[in-house]
Amino acid sequence: MIRVAIVGSTGYTGAELVRLLSHHREVEIVALTSQSYVDQPYEKVYPSLTDHVGLTCQAQNVEALMADVDAVFLALPHGLSVPWAQEAYRQGKKVIDLGADFRFRQVQTYESWYKTKHEAPELLGQAVYGLPELNRDKIRKSVIVANPGCYPTASILGLAPLLKNKLVNPQKIIIDAKSGISGAGRSAKLGSLYGEVNENVKAYGVATHRHTPEIEQEAAALLGLAPEDITLSFTPHLMPMTRGILATIYCDLQENLSITATEVRQIYKDFYGGEPFIHITEENQWPETKWCYGSNYVFIGLTIDERTKRLIVTTAIDNLVKGAAGQAIQNMNLLFDLPETEGIDRPGIWP
Amino acid sequence: MIRVAIVGSTGYTGAELVRLLSHHREVEIVALTSQSYVDQPYEKVYPSLTDHVGLTCQAQNVEALMADVDAVFLALPHGLSVPWAQEAYRQGKKVIDLGADFRFRQVQTYESWYKTKHEAPELLGQAVYGLPELNRDKIRKSVIVANPGCYPTASILGLAPLLKNKLVNPQKIIIDAKSGISGAGRSAKLGSLYGEVNENVKAYGVATHRHTPEIEQEAAALLGLAPEDITLSFTPHLMPMTRGILATIYCDLQENLSITATEVRQIYKDFYGGEPFIHITEENQWPETKWCYGSNYVFIGLTIDERTKRLIVTTAIDNLVKGAAGQAIQNMNLLFDLPETEGIDRPGIWP
Amino acid sequence: MIRVAIVGSTGYTGAELVRLLSHHREVEIVALTSQSYVDQPYEKVYPSLTDHVGLTCQAQNVEALMADVDAVFLALPHGLSVPWAQEAYRQGKKVIDLGADFRFRQVQTYESWYKTKHEAPELLGQAVYGLPELNRDKIRKSVIVANPGCYPTASILGLAPLLKNKLVNPQKIIIDAKSGISGAGRSAKLGSLYGEVNENVKAYGVATHRHTPEIEQEAAALLGLAPEDITLSFTPHLMPMTRGILATIYCDLQENLSITATEVRQIYKDFYGGEPFIHITEENQWPETKWCYGSNYVFIGLTIDERTKRLIVTTAIDNLVKGAAGQAIQNMNLLFDLPETEGIDRPGIWP
Amino acid sequence: MIRVAIVGSTGYTGAELVRLLSHHREVEIVALTSQSYVDQPYEKVYPSLTDHVGLTCQAQNVEALMADVDAVFLALPHGLSVPWAQEAYRQGKKVIDLGADFRFRQVQTYESWYKTKHEAPELLGQAVYGLPELNRDKIRKSVIVANPGCYPTASILGLAPLLKNKLVNPQKIIIDAKSGISGAGRSAKLGSLYGEVNENVKAYGVATHRHTPEIEQEAAALLGLAPEDITLSFTPHLMPMTRGILATIYCDLQENLSITATEVRQIYKDFYGGEPFIHITEENQWPETKWCYGSNYVFIGLTIDERTKRLIVTTAIDNLVKGAAGQAIQNMNLLFDLPETEGIDRPGIWP
Repeated sequence: MIRVAIVGSTGYTGAELVRLLSHHREVEIVALTSQSYVDQPYEKVYPSLTDHVGLTCQAQNVEALMADVDAVFLALPHGLSVPWAQEAYRQGKKVIDLGADFRFRQVQTYESWYKTKHEAPELLGQAVYGLPELNRDKIRKSVIVANPGCYPTASILGLAPLLKNKLVNPQKIIIDAKSGISGAGRSAKLGSLYGEVNENVKAYGVATHRHTPEIEQEAAALLGLAPEDITLSFTPHLMPMTRGILATIYCDLQENLSITATEVRQIYKDFYGGEPFIHITEENQWPETKWCYGSNYVFIGLTIDERTKRLIVTTAIDNLVKGAAGQAIQNMNLLFDLPETEGIDRPGIWP
Repeated sequence: MIRVAIVGSTGYTGAELVRLLSHHREVEIVALTSQSYVDQPYEKVYPSLTDHVGLTCQAQNVEALMADVDAVFLALPHGLSVPWAQEAYRQGKKVIDLGADFRFRQVQTYESWYKTKHEAPELLGQAVYGLPELNRDKIRKSVIVANPGCYPTASILGLAPLLKNKLVNPQKIIIDAKSGISGAGRSAKLGSLYGEVNENVKAYGVATHRHTPEIEQEAAALLGLAPEDITLSFTPHLMPMTRGILATIYCDLQENLSITATEVRQIYKDFYGGEPFIHITEENQWPETKWCYGSNYVFIGLTIDERTKRLIVTTAIDNLVKGAAGQAIQNMNLLFDLPETEGIDRPGIWP
Repeated sequence: MIRVAIVGSTGYTGAELVRLLSHHREVEIVALTSQSYVDQPYEKVYPSLTDHVGLTCQAQNVEALMADVDAVFLALPHGLSVPWAQEAYRQGKKVIDLGADFRFRQVQTYESWYKTKHEAPELLGQAVYGLPELNRDKIRKSVIVANPGCYPTASILGLAPLLKNKLVNPQKIIIDAKSGISGAGRSAKLGSLYGEVNENVKAYGVATHRHTPEIEQEAAALLGLAPEDITLSFTPHLMPMTRGILATIYCDLQENLSITATEVRQIYKDFYGGEPFIHITEENQWPETKWCYGSNYVFIGLTIDERTKRLIVTTAIDNLVKGAAGQAIQNMNLLFDLPETEGIDRPGIWP
Repeated sequence: MIRVAIVGSTGYTGAELVRLLSHHREVEIVALTSQSYVDQPYEKVYPSLTDHVGLTCQAQNVEALMADVDAVFLALPHGLSVPWAQEAYRQGKKVIDLGADFRFRQVQTYESWYKTKHEAPELLGQAVYGLPELNRDKIRKSVIVANPGCYPTASILGLAPLLKNKLVNPQKIIIDAKSGISGAGRSAKLGSLYGEVNENVKAYGVATHRHTPEIEQEAAALLGLAPEDITLSFTPHLMPMTRGILATIYCDLQENLSITATEVRQIYKDFYGGEPFIHITEENQWPETKWCYGSNYVFIGLTIDERTKRLIVTTAIDNLVKGAAGQAIQNMNLLFDLPETEGIDRPGIWP
């Protein structure tokens, strides 16, 4: 059994890790840390997990905890993952970081978008961007997996076949994304109240959201370019729902490229051929976020608008599963050479 | 492997059976019948189940289908289960009927509340009311399991320790129940539209709901009385949500009975001691339906109102799981001598 | 024009007062106080009110503000209304208090349920319980109107014709109430987050909710009894919606009373004959909270369960309108001899 | 008083017309037609309107009904408005058509997108596209007002200042729109069920939605071009909510144009200077659909993404008010020379 700890376990992402890992056949959860609930039984914090996890929340002790585990999942605000990564590196353990600290290859990108000095830029080279469908082999050999953001997961998976095959103009990409409120976490703030979120839709972080450079970095990599060589528009919106992200992606077809939607669909099917979690929908069938509710699935739909010569792609995921905890477990499975779907093989819930 | 068919598989209850059974280690689903989707791949009807079920919906052929399976789950409107039960009985197969046709021991109760003639009253004696926590041994030996209604499941489980221990006046029971809309099924009707259900609460079927006699029958049985010896109030309400039932139960303590809430709580804990799915909450902690979202769990909370000498119990379940598909699988596990939690051992989803 | 101030104007109740009063033909809002938003334009706090209110939030100054107005609406946590009431009394102005400080005729009831010493018990005698349908004439002549709680409004209006006509056993009343989350106010707390409220139903404050003695006091008054002479059960539940209360009321018919549901319905229609806001539904038509969404309407439905000899009543209101701000304006109209429906005569929104 | 009839009054749009017109000081509703509810009192169909409308639904009789009124509101499926418009024209009455039949200046656009032959192309020249902020004077003098679609209203109002001032490349416009389900009407269909819509987001009608040519026609007109001279992308999405549309509009700034967001914001404020319903938000404040819930308001927010040289605009409306019934009344006010805000001057509801 692989012994793991979840650091920052009482947020929504942490709880989703516990939900999924509690039934992973090769994993034993040995510690759950929390700032707000120290010494409280975890199942009192999340009664839905009664009898599924017997642990009590504990304070963070980096060195001791790391000594006790094979791998640690970090579900922390950005800036707080560095000591854990350093200690893991020192002790030869694995880190799956669900925050942003190790997602960027260029420290200045992180520092300018996150307005924070990075405390261990030397470790960035050790980290692999944990999108298994694109980086599977590198992840297997890594020490630090930088688990992608929820929006980047949906966006990059939607874009990858297009970029890899150079079908679209990379300078004209627009991503309009819609997310449930659980992405904002479990903290008590006005903007997350039911009375404010229900029956309401709005954009936020327009032209400034921190997931933008993450998408650009991976888009550039797919094209063999440097991160700064691509600039795209990313606009997140808040939906009156708990889970789910839909990314609607608009691309201009390369000029003079003659291709049909059917051909593009086939390119996607080929690109994601053996992928257990990715499903390309048929013509005129558009992904719905609820198809993924609680599962690690990704649905991708697409068409070509013949009038505008634009390619339109929509990608649906559950932001807490493929967009966070599920993908983190997928990465852990790769790190420890386990079947990639172990612990994340169950279908979503409908209705 | 146990070979099963799901008859009426494309409604919400049927889909929940498919979701859960598709990962049951001892079950193979061999047929899915449907009226509306014949010859359509099941995963096109429910894309959330893509790659989890490879079958195509088929029309109903009672005799042939029954010959091919060990057990059949019936998710049909009332009145349609009889031919299946007859054929199962003839061929020595098992039936788990999620409808009402075999829930009543007295045919006249069924006929007067359902306004239908029962076509096979002789089979009622072969059927067992499938509430495992109360009838486990009988279920094991039965041919036809009458899976309880969603409201009766929540109500009877909330009442059982009180009635068995004769703590309350059985003629003064009031059950005020709240359900999500999925209990109304997947048919397209005005009252189930989002625009009508959202931001709305109402009572319905007041004093006339068909789950009333079912609750009365089992309440009477717990007291060792005939069904007609007990009369209670049951009022269902429709909530603006998809899944979940909360039953709030009001009972008058037996006169002159001196007992504390702590003592009653202990009685509940003893009564449900080894039960894998039932959880009694602590003082001042009241069950929430979402704690059971997608799981087979039951949460029961209670207190005594010292001012009114009334005992108040609330029971939370997921109407599609413990209130339908999950309980049906629990019954199947008993019928085939499998571990009772197999296939229904996963936690609910939160948030 | 009547000059009014709203004290505590930036909570949900305050905002509802502003929404409705901004179009009251006889009212000028001259001041809006706030703790959190001092010096901010009100329409920045609530953009839906852009151009409907030109005021800026100000801090509270009891004496000066009271000198400037004819009446003040208090939307404050309990315990904070006393200085305002004292000053109003001194200056001969009117107070409509939407909090609990002046709702009880017996100071000890307030102090034991609210766990606070009352700072001005001598003023209780000056206050009138502001339920216009029952106390219209007293309200007209009063100085301090104690605006009823949201749950008591729904409960008492549902009970009044029964109690006044002595149709039911007053010791056997059970009220099961369901409310939207806006009743919990606009403060940022875990339990009000969208992720916690959506797809969820629970009871809370079971046997301890502070609206219980308020309902009992008014129920007793209808019977001509002292408040301590009646004890009833009141259980509130939280619904996954923003607005609306449904109170389901269970009563035992007086023994030996022979009466039909049709006769009881007629008694209700007679009792509320000229009332502009109260509507009795027809047989088998059950009130829905959304029928009142945004309006001051009350819908009451009822039946007799012949099997149990119980009378079941459901009452639907919008908790922020008839349950708070709308009723407060109705009271103000009475205080100033205006048409009772002025400013609160618009229909609710559907869907 | 202006005498009006609402044809197709029992759908959601019709009900919104009744809600608003029932308190219009210059209007008397004299007839409500319906296909499904003939001879039923309107307030039984919509209990929220109890006592606000005393009429009974009647069947359609074009000639007689038109003779009895000054104006008719048509809330019908496309293709059915022609006989009403012909009769109105014959009798010299006014028509406000909330459907699509008279929105297009070129009959072939209508026929190719709506796949229907137009039965009265000669009347198209008599119709004015009823967006008062752009066509106020023409509307005043017209006989047939073609009330804009909900998506076009949000889209065109968001685009108009940009196009009129030639700030953006008209061939690179992308509109990503999000709508509540009430836009799909009150008919009972699977895709509108609560269980299918709640906790779910999806695109639909991608590259094929019929509101596309309507937006293009008006965008072209703002630029002084023929409708066929502009081609843009429009993608609607379904949100888990009842009311509200948010249109997110992406435009490429004209090449070599040097302009700041502050300057563009001022252009919008100037363009919509005296408009009673349109509000331009401040920097970093993004419109929320709920700000317009139940009101005729439009909120427009914008910024320039300096990295991509793209202008991003979001427009929020209530699809049933400014997107349908409210705008229709605004048009009627213009037709009859009434104050433009009469009957639609109330604020939205929050929360």
